[in-house]
Amino acid sequence: MENLKKKIKQEGIALSDSVLKVDTFLNHQVDPQLMKEIGEVFANRFANLGVTKVVTLESSGIAPAVFTALTLNVPLIFARKKKSLTLNEDLLTADVYSYTKQESNTISISSKFLSEQDHVLLIDDFLANGQAAEGLLEVVTKAGATTAGIGILIEKAFQDGGKRLREKGYRVESLAMISELEAGKVTFTEEEIMYESI
Amino acid sequence: MENLKKKIKQEGIALSDSVLKVDTFLNHQVDPQLMKEIGEVFANRFANLGVTKVVTLESSGIAPAVFTALTLNVPLIFARKKKSLTLNEDLLTADVYSYTKQESNTISISSKFLSEQDHVLLIDDFLANGQAAEGLLEVVTKAGATTAGIGILIEKAFQDGGKRLREKGYRVESLAMISELEAGKVTFTEEEIMYESI
Repeated sequence: MENLKKKIKQEGIALSDSVLKVDTFLNHQVDPQLMKEIGEVFANRFANLGVTKVVTLESSGIAPAVFTALTLNVPLIFARKKKSLTLNEDLLTADVYSYTKQESNTISISSKFLSEQDHVLLIDDFLANGQAAEGLLEVVTKAGATTAGIGILIEKAFQDGGKRLREKGYRVESLAMISELEAGKVTFTEEEIMYESI
Repeated sequence: MENLKKKIKQEGIALSDSVLKVDTFLNHQVDPQLMKEIGEVFANRFANLGVTKVVTLESSGIAPAVFTALTLNVPLIFARKKKSLTLNEDLLTADVYSYTKQESNTISISSKFLSEQDHVLLIDDFLANGQAAEGLLEVVTKAGATTAGIGILIEKAFQDGGKRLREKGYRVESLAMISELEAGKVTFTEEEIMYESI
């Protein structure tokens, strides 16, 4: 998706060969117009698949996912990384290790929001080693629900999460695929062209 | 705002005389259409005030706030409750105690996103004792920015946060004001009528 890649080129900061900082428009400050556009692109790519719920992980996934859900006209669920006092019912959980935050989180979704009738579209901001996506898939599977696909804003294609998910048969659509990061420089992969139907 | 109050009446669960659970449309599962409508109402109420940034607190504030920011055509910033590896620059911070989660968090916003030139609209899901709003105000003040107002989805008017903020001169607009909670029952205050310009 050209506007996202343009924004990454203009404002993204490659802090190292593995960390890309995009806090000016996605992870801290958020560009609402770009998130709306991204949501519409995801909704278009996963249209007519019978998606019943969009699922993401707090916090950075929420903005693009809520526009995806709006356009698909289905509810959004954001998985929690922590337990709240007001979320005390049956929880579907999975353990996820975040390399960025260097901590392990138990992510959870209340079992009342996902059932065997659900066909889920997962949305997340980054895909690198695939830990977060696999945690979300584990939760969806525990609910007996099925997965329509996975929409990712930025895939670090030099890490193996995307490859592994695609080999398992999941449809993964990444709007920007990065083949290489080095301090100060972002290189996009050519492979992304196959996804550039929009 | 009638649609929000209707949703609270239909789906909100008063767990006790202080805890209202609205996880079917706001705090865990999210109703994107309602969030869009809420964002448009806030944008309308705080129109023409020169708002330059919308600020909220992760995670439940993000969905209504991103639609507010979209309609006002300004960026959204969501304050972080935790430090991330990729957010390692100068941070503006405040300590906030959450009664719901029974824990204290240091909330933070990167200093590069708020300056003396900014006029901020704060958006949050709940206002009860005002801890979160006051923490956000502290951060805004530390940046040298000014505050255009505070938009709240659900105010627990039987707690004193709203009163205290209004006495300090802040314009607080709450879309649903609750005068009383008892297990199983939600009562809205009549005062809210004064805010029902939309």
